[in-house]
Amino acid sequence: MSKKKFAVILAGCGHQDGSEIHEATLTLWAIHRHGCDFSCFAPDIGQHHVLNHINGQEMDEKRNVLIEAARIARGQIAPLATFSPAGVDALVLPGGFGAAKNLCSYAWDGPNCTVQPDVARAIQAVHQAGKPIGALCIAPVIVARVLGNGVMLTSGQDQATAQNLLAMGAKNQPTSYGEIAVDRANKIVSTPCYMLDSRIDQVADGIDRLIGALLEMM
Amino acid sequence: MSKKKFAVILAGCGHQDGSEIHEATLTLWAIHRHGCDFSCFAPDIGQHHVLNHINGQEMDEKRNVLIEAARIARGQIAPLATFSPAGVDALVLPGGFGAAKNLCSYAWDGPNCTVQPDVARAIQAVHQAGKPIGALCIAPVIVARVLGNGVMLTSGQDQATAQNLLAMGAKNQPTSYGEIAVDRANKIVSTPCYMLDSRIDQVADGIDRLIGALLEMM
Repeated sequence: MSKKKFAVILAGCGHQDGSEIHEATLTLWAIHRHGCDFSCFAPDIGQHHVLNHINGQEMDEKRNVLIEAARIARGQIAPLATFSPAGVDALVLPGGFGAAKNLCSYAWDGPNCTVQPDVARAIQAVHQAGKPIGALCIAPVIVARVLGNGVMLTSGQDQATAQNLLAMGAKNQPTSYGEIAVDRANKIVSTPCYMLDSRIDQVADGIDRLIGALLEMM
Repeated sequence: MSKKKFAVILAGCGHQDGSEIHEATLTLWAIHRHGCDFSCFAPDIGQHHVLNHINGQEMDEKRNVLIEAARIARGQIAPLATFSPAGVDALVLPGGFGAAKNLCSYAWDGPNCTVQPDVARAIQAVHQAGKPIGALCIAPVIVARVLGNGVMLTSGQDQATAQNLLAMGAKNQPTSYGEIAVDRANKIVSTPCYMLDSRIDQVADGIDRLIGALLEMM
């Protein structure tokens, strides 16, 4: 039996303007730990902005989402426009503000956000192929916006995000440190990560459970 | 009993021009997993250069080691010049080419490299205080250059690096995936990580063992 393969969609490199680095790294770790393989993808677009991660101030720079995401993927990454659901068994979206700024416009538009076309297409294609999807931290808002229709997701204990999930047609299941929310009917698993004030080992526990739950759905 | 505290020295964000992201992240994970705390530090200096992590080409940009390292540390990082060994129980240096380009000049000067002064001072101070030091991937070359004097380190299976460790007065212990080299007399532990073609879960296993071995030396 060949190894199961996970596609991972990255959004840059750094939680304030890109993918949350711990969540993305621990996603790759959990996939390997379960004896599976991964392929990383990112949209080949400019970052919304570049933030100094010490003081949160905007920097006078321009960076590309795909090129910065390659730092997490150690260069092994492809433009999301080339993604096909045929070659993978599941899709995972780590969090970080980049998910809400580069992969969609949630950071400004909330439940009325627009999802980047490559991202929307990938989620729709994987879901329509009957393959499972995992969403970490703030990434559940993207899945809610694309799929809606009563899919169950988690935003940890965050009430504002929970309300927005409902506004987009999804359901919300509160979760605590290291927990996952599982929607078996729709094959969607989510975990709060840094939506809570988690320790990094708790983030890892939640992601490890999420990967295990996705595997059970294949 | 208060939690043991590890200082972690970062070198930027991305394995080609900064800290190897997986190694740095998994260092923080392993420290929390062992019930300990961490403080991150980086020198407040310019990166040697900025490389596109997809094609390895130099980019016409300037980035600061401390500001980029803050992406891995989620903003909780201090200039290495402010480091004092009094507040910590151990020191860990993740790898990545940034360790050999920003923390010292090993990438060009090999065993004749110069170590960045804040880095050299931190290693000397922790060692003189009788506290343990961990070095990942290529970072053992820094420890060898600063301490020399027969300290036992590993470069995995890499013969060229092993020869350079010897040239700097250290000893070399070959290691395989997930293994550690332990110098009990000098309280130094090292692990090869991506000096080998490791899977990321093997990198995690080695780092987890390294943190455990450092704890036993406290």
